[in-house]
Amino acid sequence: MADPRLEPVYNLMKNNDLDAAAIIPGPNFRRLFAKDFHLMERPLVVLIPRHGDPAAIVPSLEMASFDMLDFQGTVHPWRDEDGYQHAFVTAAENVPHLKTAKRIGLEAQRMRVFEQMALQAAFPDAQFVDAHSQISSVRLIKTTAEIEHLKKAIQISEAALEATLQQVEVGQTEKQIEAILLNQLFVHGAHGLAFEPIVAAGDNAAQPHASARQDYKIKQGDALLFDFGASWNGYNADITRTFFVADVSEHDRAFYETVLRANQRGREISRAGQTAHDVDDGVQLVLENSQFAQFRRHKTGHGLGLDVHEAPQIMRGNDQVLESGMVFTVEPGLYRPGECGVRIEDDVVVTKEGIECLTSFSRELRLVG
Amino acid sequence: MADPRLEPVYNLMKNNDLDAAAIIPGPNFRRLFAKDFHLMERPLVVLIPRHGDPAAIVPSLEMASFDMLDFQGTVHPWRDEDGYQHAFVTAAENVPHLKTAKRIGLEAQRMRVFEQMALQAAFPDAQFVDAHSQISSVRLIKTTAEIEHLKKAIQISEAALEATLQQVEVGQTEKQIEAILLNQLFVHGAHGLAFEPIVAAGDNAAQPHASARQDYKIKQGDALLFDFGASWNGYNADITRTFFVADVSEHDRAFYETVLRANQRGREISRAGQTAHDVDDGVQLVLENSQFAQFRRHKTGHGLGLDVHEAPQIMRGNDQVLESGMVFTVEPGLYRPGECGVRIEDDVVVTKEGIECLTSFSRELRLVG
Repeated sequence: MADPRLEPVYNLMKNNDLDAAAIIPGPNFRRLFAKDFHLMERPLVVLIPRHGDPAAIVPSLEMASFDMLDFQGTVHPWRDEDGYQHAFVTAAENVPHLKTAKRIGLEAQRMRVFEQMALQAAFPDAQFVDAHSQISSVRLIKTTAEIEHLKKAIQISEAALEATLQQVEVGQTEKQIEAILLNQLFVHGAHGLAFEPIVAAGDNAAQPHASARQDYKIKQGDALLFDFGASWNGYNADITRTFFVADVSEHDRAFYETVLRANQRGREISRAGQTAHDVDDGVQLVLENSQFAQFRRHKTGHGLGLDVHEAPQIMRGNDQVLESGMVFTVEPGLYRPGECGVRIEDDVVVTKEGIECLTSFSRELRLVG
Repeated sequence: MADPRLEPVYNLMKNNDLDAAAIIPGPNFRRLFAKDFHLMERPLVVLIPRHGDPAAIVPSLEMASFDMLDFQGTVHPWRDEDGYQHAFVTAAENVPHLKTAKRIGLEAQRMRVFEQMALQAAFPDAQFVDAHSQISSVRLIKTTAEIEHLKKAIQISEAALEATLQQVEVGQTEKQIEAILLNQLFVHGAHGLAFEPIVAAGDNAAQPHASARQDYKIKQGDALLFDFGASWNGYNADITRTFFVADVSEHDRAFYETVLRANQRGREISRAGQTAHDVDDGVQLVLENSQFAQFRRHKTGHGLGLDVHEAPQIMRGNDQVLESGMVFTVEPGLYRPGECGVRIEDDVVVTKEGIECLTSFSRELRLVG
């Protein structure tokens, strides 16, 4: 009797003509086995043949933790002194149905090259294929419990943002404001950070992936963009709000309102049965038909859960049909290089009726400091 | 005139018979270009041919940030709508000295499989080799500025630990104590976390990579282990101290003192000219010659800097000679499954005379709560 937790993996192997799948610690591993491991220089790989029980290659250092998985297969521990290659070879040669595997699916955006090299040496005749999106599909539809974890992460993030705004003053550096935000996230109960926050003002806000500067003091009229999120029990919030410092020009107000209309449009048209393409297309059309069309830079959004960037990618050309239980971001932005950037990002879950917006922080243009 | 920042890369290619090296954002990239990028689903790869200027494959979304690198080579941006493969192919076909590259070195513990697949498709005849340790050698000897950053990260971490201990009480859960520690790290000025902290008590401390439990309340006689670190300006502290809650048995005291002697031995024998093997051997002999020999589980330590686990690995069999400016951890531990674990970890920098211990938090057995 195969481990029922692995049923979605057996199904995806069948549907994608894979003889085996290799999974390493990370979001997919955590969803399947309800536990995570630090991903460092010691390979830990679970190999699942299409028929039969899985095998695990485990650093001996991690065996006590691994034993808590209730893993129903063979375990091949390896010690630092011996290196890991022999454990891969032993698994390949002794586990039924593995030795003959010809097409092995990998999480290619997650697995590192050295892990694949160890697999390749153990399976010299096998072909390794990128099955990242197929394997990650085990996380596509969120359970009620997962949505509750996301709501908690978002609630903490929004409370931390409001507390931070109360302390923002003209003349503070981006780094100082970032420090306030980080502190408030943990004060409000964050377990960790979804990612290193972006706190960017003025021209720095015009860079979609800016870093807070130690030497830039926010000044009247600057945009002040926060892109950040708490993690809670492994689940990640991802929120962006853009404010203006003390004052806003009419041009920047129009710029902001354009992004806001695109954000509203994205939330309005998202529902089960639409495709990811449809949503991005609707959002991009708002931007393209505005006076600021030339300042578009990126797609509408991405899936969100145990990973900060996961499926579904909300972009033109992605014909994935939205289903109830999918969670993704709606985050249009416009960027005038050297001048100003605005992004407004919400997290939504698809329901039978449309979407439920998990983020509730006001999107009205707000002056701070 | 080649970019002088890349001189160590040209040297290592020559010494390792590589025709090119591929570097992605992360610690090596940051050391070479003084800037980092989020590593997500969009590949950003710098290709450096053994002779001539480098090429960069850059998501168009990141171009404004990339422009700040003063990159002296060709840049091949790609947009989400078009995908990234053509940028790899264009670089491979048009950049002098790249097209003919037959042996390409990779950071195999860093690069993901999908990035290598894109490289392989662009260089169908090339052989890709794991040059992780060779490329990472650009970070092996720390500059004075780097050591100052590490000291700052450590100072913040130690202050946060002391503030946390002042608040520890019998009956708190591991998660509650972890939350206090996280908060104190940011209160004291951490820019981020070096890694997710370990706060583990009782039998959980016997797992080298434990996670804090929500449902376990610390009780009298428990070991209470903290393994954590702040990051500051990209540089990471990594400190472990183990305390006992309210009381300690004679057996656990002897257990603790054994680890402490091993830690002392490691700090005493580390100096320029010794090998990493020598240090681990000296530390392991203390543990092996004790009554607790069977509870050894891991090597002495690892290098520390922009990465939390980097060279030099302080382990038997590693004949790397220690040099002035190398930074590593000395972290012996003993683990009695189901009962108790103790680890004592310091961060040291090799000097001309011996080592300077960067961590200064007391190692005397201490009761808390």
